[in-house]
Amino acid sequence: MDSSSDSRLARQFAFLTELDKLKDILRQSLVAATRRNENSAEHSWHLAMMSLVLLEHVHAENLDRLRILKMLLIHDIVEIDAGDTFLYDALGNASKAEKEKAAATRIFSLLPPDQGGELREIWDEFEAETTPEAKCAQCLDRLQAVLQNFNTDGAAWRRNRVSKQQVVERNRKIGAMMPEIWAVVERRLDEAEQAGWFATEAATA
Amino acid sequence: MDSSSDSRLARQFAFLTELDKLKDILRQSLVAATRRNENSAEHSWHLAMMSLVLLEHVHAENLDRLRILKMLLIHDIVEIDAGDTFLYDALGNASKAEKEKAAATRIFSLLPPDQGGELREIWDEFEAETTPEAKCAQCLDRLQAVLQNFNTDGAAWRRNRVSKQQVVERNRKIGAMMPEIWAVVERRLDEAEQAGWFATEAATA
Repeated sequence: MDSSSDSRLARQFAFLTELDKLKDILRQSLVAATRRNENSAEHSWHLAMMSLVLLEHVHAENLDRLRILKMLLIHDIVEIDAGDTFLYDALGNASKAEKEKAAATRIFSLLPPDQGGELREIWDEFEAETTPEAKCAQCLDRLQAVLQNFNTDGAAWRRNRVSKQQVVERNRKIGAMMPEIWAVVERRLDEAEQAGWFATEAATA
Repeated sequence: MDSSSDSRLARQFAFLTELDKLKDILRQSLVAATRRNENSAEHSWHLAMMSLVLLEHVHAENLDRLRILKMLLIHDIVEIDAGDTFLYDALGNASKAEKEKAAATRIFSLLPPDQGGELREIWDEFEAETTPEAKCAQCLDRLQAVLQNFNTDGAAWRRNRVSKQQVVERNRKIGAMMPEIWAVVERRLDEAEQAGWFATEAATA
């Protein structure tokens, strides 16, 4: 191969090697069987699988499924530098955007510029959350965390003293894109409340 | 929602809940930074990312990129029942096919039949390795394990006393699909041999 394609491949390998680090970024969610913290790489895989089976429930026409998949696969890569921020951590979320943008600049720049630019554009689209594809990917991201809680007796909610109202507020957007799914989630949130998984409003105020 | 879409969603959630178990299936490969065993869910994510940046090196026309992504995302799901079999484990690989087929039947049947059938067909295609998409996915699967070894001083090869000849034989097919990548891999295998990562043929005979 000539030296330009050689250096192109070297950049692609450097990016793929860097990505290995996402396997060590831990989230608040637990894996159900072993009750260890889930990492952001396996979370991203689980999300990609969700998009393969749940998109029929999305109220939007002509979704670009390949673009949604790419978005879900790359959406957390910035956590290699910025770490994972729990959805209910108000302080952490306030400083999150700038740290993540700097991370995106560094990590996508490892790739040849055409590829890095394309993935950065897709990541920006996910963050801006204005296209149907981005809204859909954002909803699946929220939904995955809710399902992990349902499957671990609300472990992340209990451990962090999250209230039912917080869960409803932060996840309500699922209802706009996937109303049938949200209806099922709401029923299960009621059951979770009955089971005592949530902090009372007074405790979290 | 009516009861039929309700039960459809229940099956989809059951499938997605089952998938969580792939996060606890450990491979021989190590994660570079923490030197723990990689699991098959995060491996599948890493593979999906490889397909996003490396397909330009594949010598094949008009590849269906979405199909390759689906294939990579689902290819190891059967390990939930069958476990991971190390590429260089001759005995394990002899009994692997039947166990994995039974697993595919059970796990894809959790889904509504149309979706389970589609994913089973894609999994069968990956296993049969006759289409360009399947050949490509198989090569990326091999390549990911090679890269994990390059990034961990050959940890899985050393631990299992694998010879360089075994690595070349089991991965040579990468060369047919992605000759430029294989050329780089061969150079690095020579360096790995110099570094003493491989068992000698006598030791593994």
